[in-house]
Amino acid sequence: MPSGKISLGQYMWTRIHQVGIDTIFGVPGDFNLQFLDSVFLVSGLKWVGNQNELNAAYAADGYARVKDVPGCFITTHGVGELSALNGVAGSMSEHVKIIHVVGQTTRAMQKNNMMIHHSIGRTPNHQVYNEASRGLRFAAAELWDVESAPKEIDRVIRECFLKSGPVYIFMPLDLSAEEVDVALLDTPIDVLPRVDGAAQDEAVKAIVAAIGEAKHPSVLVDALVQRFGAAEEAGQLVRKLNVPYFSTSMGKGVVDETEETYVGLWNGEISTPGVKEAAKAADLIITLGYIPADTNTASFSRKLADETTIHIDPHAVVVKGRTYPNTSIKPLLAALLSALPSTPQHKIPKPTLPPPRQPLDKDATHITQSHLWPTLSTFLHPNDLLVGETGTSNFGICDVAFPANMRYISQIYYGSIGWAFAATLGVEVARQETQSARGKGRTILCTGDGSMALTIQEIGTMIKAGSRAILFVINNEGYTVERLIWGARQPYNDIVPTSYQHLLPLYQHPSADASFHRATTKAELAAVLAKPALQDPQCLQLVELVVPKLDTSWRLGSVLAWRSDEAKQYLTDEGFVDTYGNWGLEGASGGDVKWS
Amino acid sequence: MPSGKISLGQYMWTRIHQVGIDTIFGVPGDFNLQFLDSVFLVSGLKWVGNQNELNAAYAADGYARVKDVPGCFITTHGVGELSALNGVAGSMSEHVKIIHVVGQTTRAMQKNNMMIHHSIGRTPNHQVYNEASRGLRFAAAELWDVESAPKEIDRVIRECFLKSGPVYIFMPLDLSAEEVDVALLDTPIDVLPRVDGAAQDEAVKAIVAAIGEAKHPSVLVDALVQRFGAAEEAGQLVRKLNVPYFSTSMGKGVVDETEETYVGLWNGEISTPGVKEAAKAADLIITLGYIPADTNTASFSRKLADETTIHIDPHAVVVKGRTYPNTSIKPLLAALLSALPSTPQHKIPKPTLPPPRQPLDKDATHITQSHLWPTLSTFLHPNDLLVGETGTSNFGICDVAFPANMRYISQIYYGSIGWAFAATLGVEVARQETQSARGKGRTILCTGDGSMALTIQEIGTMIKAGSRAILFVINNEGYTVERLIWGARQPYNDIVPTSYQHLLPLYQHPSADASFHRATTKAELAAVLAKPALQDPQCLQLVELVVPKLDTSWRLGSVLAWRSDEAKQYLTDEGFVDTYGNWGLEGASGGDVKWS
Repeated sequence: MPSGKISLGQYMWTRIHQVGIDTIFGVPGDFNLQFLDSVFLVSGLKWVGNQNELNAAYAADGYARVKDVPGCFITTHGVGELSALNGVAGSMSEHVKIIHVVGQTTRAMQKNNMMIHHSIGRTPNHQVYNEASRGLRFAAAELWDVESAPKEIDRVIRECFLKSGPVYIFMPLDLSAEEVDVALLDTPIDVLPRVDGAAQDEAVKAIVAAIGEAKHPSVLVDALVQRFGAAEEAGQLVRKLNVPYFSTSMGKGVVDETEETYVGLWNGEISTPGVKEAAKAADLIITLGYIPADTNTASFSRKLADETTIHIDPHAVVVKGRTYPNTSIKPLLAALLSALPSTPQHKIPKPTLPPPRQPLDKDATHITQSHLWPTLSTFLHPNDLLVGETGTSNFGICDVAFPANMRYISQIYYGSIGWAFAATLGVEVARQETQSARGKGRTILCTGDGSMALTIQEIGTMIKAGSRAILFVINNEGYTVERLIWGARQPYNDIVPTSYQHLLPLYQHPSADASFHRATTKAELAAVLAKPALQDPQCLQLVELVVPKLDTSWRLGSVLAWRSDEAKQYLTDEGFVDTYGNWGLEGASGGDVKWS
Repeated sequence: MPSGKISLGQYMWTRIHQVGIDTIFGVPGDFNLQFLDSVFLVSGLKWVGNQNELNAAYAADGYARVKDVPGCFITTHGVGELSALNGVAGSMSEHVKIIHVVGQTTRAMQKNNMMIHHSIGRTPNHQVYNEASRGLRFAAAELWDVESAPKEIDRVIRECFLKSGPVYIFMPLDLSAEEVDVALLDTPIDVLPRVDGAAQDEAVKAIVAAIGEAKHPSVLVDALVQRFGAAEEAGQLVRKLNVPYFSTSMGKGVVDETEETYVGLWNGEISTPGVKEAAKAADLIITLGYIPADTNTASFSRKLADETTIHIDPHAVVVKGRTYPNTSIKPLLAALLSALPSTPQHKIPKPTLPPPRQPLDKDATHITQSHLWPTLSTFLHPNDLLVGETGTSNFGICDVAFPANMRYISQIYYGSIGWAFAATLGVEVARQETQSARGKGRTILCTGDGSMALTIQEIGTMIKAGSRAILFVINNEGYTVERLIWGARQPYNDIVPTSYQHLLPLYQHPSADASFHRATTKAELAAVLAKPALQDPQCLQLVELVVPKLDTSWRLGSVLAWRSDEAKQYLTDEGFVDTYGNWGLEGASGGDVKWS
């Protein structure tokens, strides 16, 4: 057994590395500098400094989503930790595992309420920032003495996995230098949930029985099944049941869309023709990790009746309205797979959807939203990963068909614009660390000019870190998603005009000219997408797509039109046009489904 | 009397305009769009949209510091308000008046705990973000019904002035459209403190008596006297007393440095030769709006004994250890001015300080910190305004002599890097609105490459808004202030390499090439400073100053060396050099003062 002592700082970083984290993001500050040195004492752990703290939180979030381990970032007392708070809240909302280490003032400074910089008032309470994040995290290690600190660190790392969301470690600067036994590192942190076997058996039995009684069950895959590490089991379940399966916007790509039984993205009433009709043919819907938020249900338009639904949630199962608590989705799905008959009980014909509609603006030569997203489908390769930003992109991506082993990362419930751009840094860092998961796949971001502005400087970190991501930015002169909601032509929906060709040279991209691409027409778009630099990028690529400012995807306009007659009238009055003619309502959205 | 109704949104913006605010900063979002329209219904009120919410908070803070009215900015529910929180906390720490308007989800969404985007959890508490800022604001209007809302809005605007710090207005989207009587606008909001005449008289008497008893009183001017609107009275007091006066780092420039009795910046033990000796000659120190934070006292090295000190604080006076509560600094100073004899009671000779020291690196041809700051003194004109960033700049600026009517804006207590860059937007907007205060003066920013990275995109807003600021960025390859503290050569103190010549074109500066300047040598610096574009800028100017990465101002190194022998040893071991030879300790800092 190893003996001897290490600093608490080194203990913390080693524990963090032991659970699968290979990169620490963050911004240094004078209350974390000393124990940042310990990062470099942990073999295999590396540092990627960010341009600011919010971007660090977003990068850690993107990292976590790809690696299925926590993302970790560090900030300094007050000024740093508060700047990151919105990113942390997003990880909470979206159940993304995050460890936020905060370098605090020393215990003496805290005890004596000293007026140290970054504080507030004459006799400052140094814990006022800790209090600000209390409702936005699942657990916190408020470290104060070296005896209890190791256990506290271990506890919150475990909580991070169990709850799948943000935890904090508050490390007073002086405490980080105190020493603990190195032997404490020998016992791995148990990050697996404890299974209540009886509760799980009861839930599995109820699920199996309900499936057995159904004539036409279907599966709806959503994001939480991925967040709690059970995407693999979800795929196995879909294959074993051999019944129609659908995804939500947030669950898109969690299970391969190339599976034989995949029907489409059931976005409530606002779905491509035939999809909602096919979904509604089911007499039992089994949801996996469902998130019934407005933005994931087309404004609550996907109605699921208790008596025809099974919800397999992260910590409970609900079968036809009856709740089975104390379960855990990953082991539960494994148990369910074992309990199901080895041959499928159902033989449901495959639904055939109506052929794709022709957009009214199909003959336009400039890039339209109706052209862009189907074109993106043809650009994707197996093993690619797509990051989608809130707004135009995430609505458009709903219409992008995915090849095999495709991952899609989005923040559709929390919807903090700017997230996707900085998250893409973390996504690429995580993929560099997991080459097997990456295969030859590319990392592709779709964002808009409005969103990108918030976190634009993080492209510098991406360049420095050697990211090979492809960044598509839709330049449509501002916040188009907001123009659709209100103020179509109001100045508050305009942004600062930006000439993107100067962005790569600003951050010393090694081949800036060759790596920037711009397209305003469909022909230019086709030419750009065919370039070797985009087909197999060796360094970061930035692609500006110029799209008219009032152009939108049919789905975004339709979701808004669906909300009220006033909203529909507003869209018409302001000159927005649905390229399918009727804001996706009734005829345009519906479609005959053939089961064959 | 006007009659009729206006929306609550319009009421709020009109109230905000009535107290002197002409510009609303912020970022639109779907829970504030509708009532953003009302901004344009208020004559004289304009909108300046920011690149992100943290930058908006900083811009509003800069605006407030210049105009002596609150800065106001708007964000959207959750994602926006949290991103701004660090900026708000900075305004709290530094007593800067800020009104943060948050567009919240509708009351129905809140009451029903609906899973609306930007929320957390399955039955979200929409007030969780409001709770996060509770300890970081002086008051909040948590609006819920239209009957009480106007009074609540008025109340927090008043509180913003009285406490001189941030207040929140939480406006549920649906509530903003409800109507109130326009006649409510006729009664101005009383923003003046109520004076407790008896308490004030007692305090004034004690101050007058103590001054009368003293043989050698001196005044120490600090920042809070400015924050509470009493800079003018402070200047009058200094002139009326006709005794030596000093400033702190944060109070620099609050009273003109061209006053006959100004001695210098008394930065505790780390002062230019003679200043601390001159200060210590006093048998009574009268502080005005004192902030005894570590960064404003050279690590608590300015010792003020109770028995020889009068503190005139914002809401109390302490005379030789005895507290006189319930006062208000601005009316109190006015009363004190009246109570003092019309001719000065003291005739204290003017101290003559030793001549300026010669730096060891005076013959270097490249730009050194020992050269840069004195050179900046020669560049300044009367009526200029200087914004200083935490780090290298704010320590260097201590050595910059100010011409008449010079303003200096800094955030030395809170010290959130990135603040100065975005604050400069607000500073210029405020100066454009107050041409008389501006005179022909320029707005000049000194920041560093490390700090600037955090908020760099706000230069786009400055360009769009027609700012004529001069932005000096010290390019010293990262966080030099942190290298001095720890990790001189550690990678975490490096930042992303940036080629600043691409920044103005990125944001479509109208004359980008002519407005970017770069200097690496003293000769180049002199040539740049002499350019007409810098002497009288007609549009935004960006100046990159290349300075060696381990070079530092004597004052920053000396403050750190003063803290401990270990710190001094660290500086020496890492190769940092004090250009005056001894880290400002003992001989180097001391100096003979002649009183003549």
